Amino acid sequence: MADLLHPSWKTEAVRLRIDLSYDGTDFNGWAIQPGRRTVQGELEAAMDTVLRTTGTRLTVAGRTDRGVHARGQVVHVDLDEDALAQVPGRGVQAPVDALLRRVNGVAGRDVRIHRVSQAPEGFDARFSAIWRRYAYRIADDPTMVDPLRRSHVVAWPRPLDVDAMNVAAAELLGLNDFASFCKRREGATTIRTLLDLRWERIDGILVAEVRADAFCHSMVRSLVGCLAVVGEGRKRPGFAREVMTSKTRHPGVAVAPAHGLTLEEVGYPPDDQLAAQAAGSRTKRMLPTDSHDDDDE
Amino acid sequence: MADLLHPSWKTEAVRLRIDLSYDGTDFNGWAIQPGRRTVQGELEAAMDTVLRTTGTRLTVAGRTDRGVHARGQVVHVDLDEDALAQVPGRGVQAPVDALLRRVNGVAGRDVRIHRVSQAPEGFDARFSAIWRRYAYRIADDPTMVDPLRRSHVVAWPRPLDVDAMNVAAAELLGLNDFASFCKRREGATTIRTLLDLRWERIDGILVAEVRADAFCHSMVRSLVGCLAVVGEGRKRPGFAREVMTSKTRHPGVAVAPAHGLTLEEVGYPPDDQLAAQAAGSRTKRMLPTDSHDDDDE
Repeated sequence: MADLLHPSWKTEAVRLRIDLSYDGTDFNGWAIQPGRRTVQGELEAAMDTVLRTTGTRLTVAGRTDRGVHARGQVVHVDLDEDALAQVPGRGVQAPVDALLRRVNGVAGRDVRIHRVSQAPEGFDARFSAIWRRYAYRIADDPTMVDPLRRSHVVAWPRPLDVDAMNVAAAELLGLNDFASFCKRREGATTIRTLLDLRWERIDGILVAEVRADAFCHSMVRSLVGCLAVVGEGRKRPGFAREVMTSKTRHPGVAVAPAHGLTLEEVGYPPDDQLAAQAAGSRTKRMLPTDSHDDDDE
Repeated sequence: MADLLHPSWKTEAVRLRIDLSYDGTDFNGWAIQPGRRTVQGELEAAMDTVLRTTGTRLTVAGRTDRGVHARGQVVHVDLDEDALAQVPGRGVQAPVDALLRRVNGVAGRDVRIHRVSQAPEGFDARFSAIWRRYAYRIADDPTMVDPLRRSHVVAWPRPLDVDAMNVAAAELLGLNDFASFCKRREGATTIRTLLDLRWERIDGILVAEVRADAFCHSMVRSLVGCLAVVGEGRKRPGFAREVMTSKTRHPGVAVAPAHGLTLEEVGYPPDDQLAAQAAGSRTKRMLPTDSHDDDDE
């Protein structure tokens, strides 16, 4: 990091990895939109302010939809080394720590950066990721509805059978075409590898852990909506797999509310495989008409 | 409960116990105040609406201050049996369950009733209680600040030494005069029995569990402020007991922020001791000038 503290006259770009969390309630999702408050817009503006620049651009691991939260979101940003070195820090504070503190000071309290670090060689927040893990939280018992957690736990009006949902969920695992659970986009693939999908009752709250190499748009929320039909006893567990193999959206399956969904963690391979992973992801997913829907929720 | 479903022409009063939770953020505390949104005001108005009456009065176990939350608050209310029986329910739904559902439908989502039940003979939400348990939550590590829990976890600017705080806390347990930690009120006693005061790091968050027979005004928050001085290393653990034995407020001890504090649970004796406990509490605490500060936080 010595080169960050003592920049030469020659400006070089440095790639930073930023780990952050946000409460999606008052954001119109991750992606920047003119005239609307978004997480990307909020953070890029804060970084512009702190770095006294314009045009800071963040690349995100998992683009979250309006109302969706994140606890383990990851982004990268490419900065001039000298702009970074000029962020005023306290004493021997590293420029990355000064950046963290100052951006948190400027941004709203509903988004918090936890860590800023120099990214390892070949790191790309989006394309190097090998999996994303989401949680979906439901209070299906009125006595468990906690006002302090109402921002991120959905109050469900009927009790859900966790065992039936887990039987149904297990039949969706693996490499499958999730077209039935995705908002269609022309030319974009809906084939994903679902690594984990399991419900657990934690302190009375139903929590789904959902992990996949990547997700298409509204995929977790559609899976939750489908499993809830089973959980309510309106369909047998085999229903979920039937919906999946039909490869068309089912009229009886609703997309579950956004505010129950939280991006919890993004997985990356060891440092020496980051570049190869990024190259592979780009080749596999970036078809001509692909519209970034490989990592949307 | 048969008498609740089939009231005779003669109206009799029935005492209900109500268990509830609230997010204190947007309330000016529990106690009703003209022109301000309070938990008591919100619930009494909702019950008036549902019962088509006026003047519903709730008695609370622990009066919480502005910004303080509750997960296990308890109140009682005396209602006419026939007014209760007339709350429209669904099918065989008991009147108490219909009341719960309808009051939750009318009140803001930041307060939720979990249970309504006919109170056992001799039950008084305030005077029958034998202890109140509060939790105080602090994120003293910037990487643990969770935007989704910012309503009830205080972001502390410096790291805290949990072991030092527990050494200090242990020396405050038992029957003591907590005048140093109470807002003085003329004629009101500040002698309390502190049953538990212990910090634990749970998922990276510092949580204090504080239990006493009752609390005087701002007592938990003052105890937390005192222990934080020790936790930051500005004083040795013996400082907390010194402050207590001095019986005067210490200028170096700040009252910790309200939003870290949550009333978690209220304890009651077995049903056959409820009336005796209530009579005892009244005798002990209701001095002529006492201003209800036996159960304030």
